[in-house]
Amino acid sequence: MCEKRKPKELLIETASRLFKARGYCAVGLNDIIEASGVPKGSLYHYFPEGKEQLATAAIHNTKELVMEDIKRVFSGSPNPMDAFQAYVYELSKVFGEGGDPIGSPIGTIAGEKHSTSEPIRLACAATFKDWQAIYAEQFLAAGYSEQQASGLAIVFHALTEGGILLALTMKSGKPLEVIAEQIPFLLIKK
Amino acid sequence: MCEKRKPKELLIETASRLFKARGYCAVGLNDIIEASGVPKGSLYHYFPEGKEQLATAAIHNTKELVMEDIKRVFSGSPNPMDAFQAYVYELSKVFGEGGDPIGSPIGTIAGEKHSTSEPIRLACAATFKDWQAIYAEQFLAAGYSEQQASGLAIVFHALTEGGILLALTMKSGKPLEVIAEQIPFLLIKK
Repeated sequence: MCEKRKPKELLIETASRLFKARGYCAVGLNDIIEASGVPKGSLYHYFPEGKEQLATAAIHNTKELVMEDIKRVFSGSPNPMDAFQAYVYELSKVFGEGGDPIGSPIGTIAGEKHSTSEPIRLACAATFKDWQAIYAEQFLAAGYSEQQASGLAIVFHALTEGGILLALTMKSGKPLEVIAEQIPFLLIKK
Repeated sequence: MCEKRKPKELLIETASRLFKARGYCAVGLNDIIEASGVPKGSLYHYFPEGKEQLATAAIHNTKELVMEDIKRVFSGSPNPMDAFQAYVYELSKVFGEGGDPIGSPIGTIAGEKHSTSEPIRLACAATFKDWQAIYAEQFLAAGYSEQQASGLAIVFHALTEGGILLALTMKSGKPLEVIAEQIPFLLIKK
């Protein structure tokens, strides 16, 4: 795409885009080489273990991008429920028709590869833990106990992953929009 | 496996089992033929369009099995929140280590194939709609407005799909167990 990108970044970006379009298994290394314009030798220089290693790099990279995004939304509101609602509204646009989610798909690759690739499963599991830790911090700061904060973090993370899956399957941001609308009705007892 | 099964059922069962173990894309028709012991000619007799058609049949079949399961759990409790909690506890066992989810995976196949197979995407979308309709009925019967009942149905369905994805990725029923534990704290305003 952009000629000034470094080959490693370009490989990660191209792989992410192809995984989004076709899923993990249906993308071959040759597709990535062709679409990125990066020579095969460079790919094996940066990712000697091939596609699986490139995928885990793409997952780590996306984890960081999404963390920044979550932090940005949560720093904008003192109430974690309001912030969570704002975040799910953003997801409804990004995962709705015409939207363009950042980075590599993670939930769908986790679903596809959890049973057949330990490196990919572990990269996805580490990503999920890190995202949940940010949510948990917000609930802690809002006065919930440690146990309930970590429980609610899992609930809210599951809601986003499930909502994204429904949006992709329905080809519409509507399910995430409906989830965002319902958040104020979920009064959380401390 | 069981010699008395009809070839069509045996093909659906075998495909479901292999999709669960490896994902959709990594399973070939030859794997299904070999593992089921059903001859190739029979496979093309029942599923002339091949793997995609067999997968949509497996999805429809699983949809019905899960519907019965949801109805069984909800008929056991007059309060939809209690029933939902009981259902998520069941999921935590089924999707935890050593558990054996019924039928074909649906969420993970939806995630893998939503962008590349319209027949599979539509079969998964129809399944999701039907499951959500059962949840919505429960909330309606418990006195919520039609709009809120359908909204909450999407919230609870997203929670199950997200929770299942977390359980598969963590190789543990714990995330679903935590979600079940938190349900009584999600007081829903009417």
